[in-house]
Amino acid sequence: MASSTAPEMKTTSRLLLGPGPSPVHPRVLRAMSIPLLGHLDPQFLAIMNEVQDMLRAVFETENPFTIAVSGTGSAGMEAALANLIEPGDKVIVCVNGVFGARMADIVGRCGGTLVRLEAAWGEVLAQERIEEALRREAPVKAVALVHAETSTGAEQPLAGLGQLCHDRSALLIVDAVTSLGGLPVQVDRHAIDVCYSGTQKCLSCPPGLAPLTLSPRALEAVRSRKTKVQSWYLDLSMIADYWAEGKRAYHHTAPVSMIYGLREALRIVLEEGLERRFARHRRNSAALLAGLAQLGCEPNAAEGHRLPSLNCVKTPPGVEEGPVRQALLTDARIEIGGGLGPLAGKVWRIGLMGEGSWPEHVLAVLFALETALAKTGRRVKPGGSLAAAVGVYAS
Amino acid sequence: MASSTAPEMKTTSRLLLGPGPSPVHPRVLRAMSIPLLGHLDPQFLAIMNEVQDMLRAVFETENPFTIAVSGTGSAGMEAALANLIEPGDKVIVCVNGVFGARMADIVGRCGGTLVRLEAAWGEVLAQERIEEALRREAPVKAVALVHAETSTGAEQPLAGLGQLCHDRSALLIVDAVTSLGGLPVQVDRHAIDVCYSGTQKCLSCPPGLAPLTLSPRALEAVRSRKTKVQSWYLDLSMIADYWAEGKRAYHHTAPVSMIYGLREALRIVLEEGLERRFARHRRNSAALLAGLAQLGCEPNAAEGHRLPSLNCVKTPPGVEEGPVRQALLTDARIEIGGGLGPLAGKVWRIGLMGEGSWPEHVLAVLFALETALAKTGRRVKPGGSLAAAVGVYAS
Repeated sequence: MASSTAPEMKTTSRLLLGPGPSPVHPRVLRAMSIPLLGHLDPQFLAIMNEVQDMLRAVFETENPFTIAVSGTGSAGMEAALANLIEPGDKVIVCVNGVFGARMADIVGRCGGTLVRLEAAWGEVLAQERIEEALRREAPVKAVALVHAETSTGAEQPLAGLGQLCHDRSALLIVDAVTSLGGLPVQVDRHAIDVCYSGTQKCLSCPPGLAPLTLSPRALEAVRSRKTKVQSWYLDLSMIADYWAEGKRAYHHTAPVSMIYGLREALRIVLEEGLERRFARHRRNSAALLAGLAQLGCEPNAAEGHRLPSLNCVKTPPGVEEGPVRQALLTDARIEIGGGLGPLAGKVWRIGLMGEGSWPEHVLAVLFALETALAKTGRRVKPGGSLAAAVGVYAS
Repeated sequence: MASSTAPEMKTTSRLLLGPGPSPVHPRVLRAMSIPLLGHLDPQFLAIMNEVQDMLRAVFETENPFTIAVSGTGSAGMEAALANLIEPGDKVIVCVNGVFGARMADIVGRCGGTLVRLEAAWGEVLAQERIEEALRREAPVKAVALVHAETSTGAEQPLAGLGQLCHDRSALLIVDAVTSLGGLPVQVDRHAIDVCYSGTQKCLSCPPGLAPLTLSPRALEAVRSRKTKVQSWYLDLSMIADYWAEGKRAYHHTAPVSMIYGLREALRIVLEEGLERRFARHRRNSAALLAGLAQLGCEPNAAEGHRLPSLNCVKTPPGVEEGPVRQALLTDARIEIGGGLGPLAGKVWRIGLMGEGSWPEHVLAVLFALETALAKTGRRVKPGGSLAAAVGVYAS
């Protein structure tokens, strides 16, 4: 059996500008390699408190129930929905991309009655449509939507939605996987009841944890369920007893090293400051889009609804996207993403998230795209996209 | 908000001899800090293949479906049960500790019909009782049991159980969280259909992944379900398409750094060789138990059913266990575990798992216990437990 032993791992250094994971800060990598404490060690419990405090700061919430779920962003999605929804509950899900569709799938698995509001991939849901659905379908248990749709690059406006839901006694569930730490989520300001994210996007931590916060109203809904949550692993009423100071009841073994990494990643976010960080994401995205326009790549989402963290652009007419993306990976060691579902073959998704969002990375990916496109025979003005990006930085 | 920023993390070095996490090898810690590849990068997919190969070697199975679930051991338990059980399926669960009870809880959440076979905490289930239940309750979809009960230190014999189940068209589901890599599990030899583990026990990797293997028969049961698996995150029919060579369909973002860590941990296991590793675990456990006997601590499980990886012993008569355990943590920087449920206050659980299972750790914990017990006023012969342990090593 020893013949199965793999050789030493040798990986190529990659610039991760895809839809995630994003580049991880060296300080976070170092934190991942710290020898472990036990998951019930008083020192580790203090670390959990610090992580909770910092998560509250990044979510911009006072919610006591603010934790990191022991799984990736999709585990956060499932925890959010499975804990809130009981069989027969009516849930409005806004679907304008892969992740809205995933929410709809999970609502069905939870026995919820799904009300699906659709928009084209790249568009967002008008507030009036949500309002109309809340009225028509009353009573509705929850409205679930994706703030930052990673598959389309569209940003769903959140202002006013929480109040709209609460006026109809519904809860608001928001997927902030590709926004938290990169653009404002503002849980309390928008009266969001359940908000979750992933660590591997704008927080620039490895994938493996899902930050999650519940308003007191949402927590009350979990605590007053008539049926057990169908998932034991993600049962928040039990997990709450592990994260709650003073209780610390064993539920499952916390992923200690991932918590170390998240702690350091959150420190870096807060040292920079949210406003500065958001401005950095906006600025680098603007420079990238200016450069991409020179290469014939137009944004997939409408102006005013474009994510600075995930730049989804149409590939230039007549260009086969796969070989270009492959050339970036092999020649320039840069990862960008292709399209999913109806956008497969039609878009590139270029993430500028957390440690990925810096001018040198914008210039690197533009240069690599220029080079790869020129090889396909397409006429590209050498340095044209770089000049456009630099123009944005100079302005 | 920046006032929430936590200070630099300063942790005490701990010798982790509790029920997990176990000490992590420096090579594994180093692997955790390697800069990340994307989860769909060809290089990362090759790494996944290598992890699968090495997991098969450690599980001692040829099962093509052998993966690491993106969650801790409990996520492995839930994945095993939620994918196999459909509403109304009858499942026999052997309950002789915390983890059997957890399985029973999950069966209920999956809508299964629970047949609970109980044994006292520290005892194991006689094969005749399982056989009798299979006959009485036919048709039974599955028998689920814990190979290494972390809460009691008891090892459930596995020989013959697979055949017994298959004769009655039932599947055998085995929890090997505290055995895989420390004592023989032998999935194929015992005809186990579903076996899962955790990374933070005898594999000496940080917590966060659950190795899982399914026999072709079990996979067929998953694929021929009439209803969707209630968990999207743990839906193995979809996860299989990500791990399957040639398909690699995106499901959720793999926890890249944890996979790096597991890969290195598995290399270390296979470099040592399973037989040598198992012998090491047995030898160190024997030395520890010899020393503990000198301190008045008798094993909780009967002879022949004691786990070498998790030594659960009764605390000496008249000694309050909490302060002793606390003294070990603060004075000797050694973590050991207390009892759970009916064993709370009555036992210590001393893990000698993976990198924890070495003579110097046995001597360290015995010396620390001698010292702490002497402080409680109990008569302890100085060096007596150490001499007993050394005697085992000398024999």
